[in-house]
Amino acid sequence: MKNEFNLGIFGLGTVGTGVVRLVSEHRDLIAGRVGAPVRISKAVVSDVEKKRGIDLSDIRLSSDPAFILDDPDIDVVIEVIGGLDAAETVILGALARGKSVVTANKAVLAERGQAIFPAAHDARGHFGFESSVGTAIPIIRTLREGFSGDEVLHLSGIINGTSNYILTRMSRDGLEFDEALEKAQARGLAEPDPTLDIQGVDAAHKLIIMMDLAFGGSFDFSRLHTEGISGIRAVDIRYAAQLGYVIKHAGFAGKTGQGIEARVHPVLVPEDHILSSVNDAFNAIAVSGKFAGPSLVYGLGAGPGPTAAGILSDVIDACRHGCSRQFSPVTISLADWQPKEIVPMDRIRTAYYLRFRVQDVLGVLASISHILAENRISVRSVIQEGEAAGTGGPVDVVLITHEALEADVRQALTRIHQEPFLAGDTQLIRIHKGFTSHE
Amino acid sequence: MKNEFNLGIFGLGTVGTGVVRLVSEHRDLIAGRVGAPVRISKAVVSDVEKKRGIDLSDIRLSSDPAFILDDPDIDVVIEVIGGLDAAETVILGALARGKSVVTANKAVLAERGQAIFPAAHDARGHFGFESSVGTAIPIIRTLREGFSGDEVLHLSGIINGTSNYILTRMSRDGLEFDEALEKAQARGLAEPDPTLDIQGVDAAHKLIIMMDLAFGGSFDFSRLHTEGISGIRAVDIRYAAQLGYVIKHAGFAGKTGQGIEARVHPVLVPEDHILSSVNDAFNAIAVSGKFAGPSLVYGLGAGPGPTAAGILSDVIDACRHGCSRQFSPVTISLADWQPKEIVPMDRIRTAYYLRFRVQDVLGVLASISHILAENRISVRSVIQEGEAAGTGGPVDVVLITHEALEADVRQALTRIHQEPFLAGDTQLIRIHKGFTSHE
Repeated sequence: MKNEFNLGIFGLGTVGTGVVRLVSEHRDLIAGRVGAPVRISKAVVSDVEKKRGIDLSDIRLSSDPAFILDDPDIDVVIEVIGGLDAAETVILGALARGKSVVTANKAVLAERGQAIFPAAHDARGHFGFESSVGTAIPIIRTLREGFSGDEVLHLSGIINGTSNYILTRMSRDGLEFDEALEKAQARGLAEPDPTLDIQGVDAAHKLIIMMDLAFGGSFDFSRLHTEGISGIRAVDIRYAAQLGYVIKHAGFAGKTGQGIEARVHPVLVPEDHILSSVNDAFNAIAVSGKFAGPSLVYGLGAGPGPTAAGILSDVIDACRHGCSRQFSPVTISLADWQPKEIVPMDRIRTAYYLRFRVQDVLGVLASISHILAENRISVRSVIQEGEAAGTGGPVDVVLITHEALEADVRQALTRIHQEPFLAGDTQLIRIHKGFTSHE
Repeated sequence: MKNEFNLGIFGLGTVGTGVVRLVSEHRDLIAGRVGAPVRISKAVVSDVEKKRGIDLSDIRLSSDPAFILDDPDIDVVIEVIGGLDAAETVILGALARGKSVVTANKAVLAERGQAIFPAAHDARGHFGFESSVGTAIPIIRTLREGFSGDEVLHLSGIINGTSNYILTRMSRDGLEFDEALEKAQARGLAEPDPTLDIQGVDAAHKLIIMMDLAFGGSFDFSRLHTEGISGIRAVDIRYAAQLGYVIKHAGFAGKTGQGIEARVHPVLVPEDHILSSVNDAFNAIAVSGKFAGPSLVYGLGAGPGPTAAGILSDVIDACRHGCSRQFSPVTISLADWQPKEIVPMDRIRTAYYLRFRVQDVLGVLASISHILAENRISVRSVIQEGEAAGTGGPVDVVLITHEALEADVRQALTRIHQEPFLAGDTQLIRIHKGFTSHE
């Protein structure tokens, strides 16, 4: 065992300074758990002069990556600069030099995993990425170690805290999407440019990483069906509540008879389901194993404290094992770790919430039901706004279907949209599938 | 890396045969994850002739512990015989011979941890006990690895599936305790002798193990305040529901200004709290870290499948690391791992549900409130059965208090029990503390 461990950190933004603060505050606790002192000795940042509001007197700064990468005394490299190209260069460079690497960067793992995971597999050092999904929630450990003897059947989760906060506010305070987004921004829970969160991209990154581990292969991020929450209206939240559901934004991936299905989009979750209790900026991921049955991990999915705690747990893991690679970062041998396909969306089967905006003329519900039936879609429940008594003005017709083929639903909607009684856009939200309350 | 791993298993009861079945069904998956074949080559059982309903043709049997312990080809010993003395002998014997050990035995770890953990700390082999708490729920990994860089502030959990199933049935079906217990026994969710579960002992074992890891020390099982659920009545469940609570059985341990508080007993959980959604035989453990914030892990807490999956995850961990000890099984150095005290119950502060059975005479509530106030206990809400209009017959008076000192509550109850209007036993249930919904 080495008698001390030196860390080099790339990036001193919110997350990076959180790591510096945690390593400093928990110095003794960390030394006790590792068995030797652990210190951050170097940092690489783009602007070495910038004030960062924390004590950096023990840390030497540079803007040159080689300052850390070419220093043989650095045992562990922490990458928290984010983004793709520069982060990939740092990670691959550190791995190539035999250093252990810890990253919280979900984008680079989801989009460049095909280069990074094999490099980490062949490296001498440890590779940790617990914080890349759900910060300190131990989902990466759960998939790599907890389910190592079991077969993962499906996983699903609320994995974007910003979206969950916005939907919680819409649900509890009756706000429209734009109002809830403003509130999230005011509280620092959404970026000034919230695109990655509200369009589902951040959740899609996280789902791909979990799928790589759960199903032992490399999934193509660009093939993952991804929808965000910006199309959800307050009226949908109200109708869902009437029908016994809560609207959440979730990722789902599971083995079916057709292969591996996966998608990221808003879902209706039954209100007695444990995922419906996951509110505000919390995340939760449900994993079902063939032998282990259903399980769930829950916690804060964002914030400098939880992210730093997750990063530090990886650093301690690396140091406890002498900064040498323990086992494959993707849990299996590289020979078995092949590109894997996602079942095309047209072929999935699930239940749907459909809201039609229609002229309130007699027979509309009958016409819609008829077209759905022609496309092999059966209706489980209906809400018709007002009396549907032919008063003429536009009203909502809301339907929950039984399970149907996505291709059939798309075809039925195309057909319905040709009807003269249509008076606005149609809303389609899928019903949550997978982990059920009692399964 | 070895080119194969041999396991020896002690015990082929429900759990042991579950492990045999899982290792056989997932043979290829396990080999892929370990990088070498893993097989169970020997088993030690008390009766080698007994039929066990599974294929044991590849496994050699003996009733002599030395058959496994003294075989240099056995890499990992799995202990699933349960109980204390024989299990302790097997575990210590295997560790002394340099073998890796995996156990699911919560009793032996809670009651003999002071001997076992130091032995595991000094051993050459790996020591795994993930299944000892919550079977496949990754709580041991979460505490040993996930929170390794953080300070655990408190933890609480529903950790006895039998008790949770019984309370769920009482709550949902309006059953009395005895009826719900019979139902649990009929479904195989309670033992013919359910004492360990319904008296809280099983939960107390699990809490002690978690405390050892979370707070880095050895806690004395015999000093842990432990109550079971056999005193809960259907009427308490109904009053709790009226007041917005669900009754659960939980363990709690946390750092307070006084030291480390810990206890196992029934609790009232607010109905919007995530723990209130944990039903049937599910378990859930909430852990709050100083930096990570609140988190929760949830899953099946019992059953041969989940237990086997948890055991196998430990076996794979051991094999992946070449069956050599990785880091301290208690997460810190042995020198720092000292006996730790639990704050005496008299000194804890929490809120209480109190149900008094009284003669319905005028002024009873005033008298009770007066005695509580004299003992520094203030009342937050009250339910008085019937009209409390002095009709004379026995009625319930139910109170929820603000936080108060346990010693004061005990003294107030002694005083109230001297009153002539008392007409039956008093119920005391503490309100859940720790992990709150929004924390």
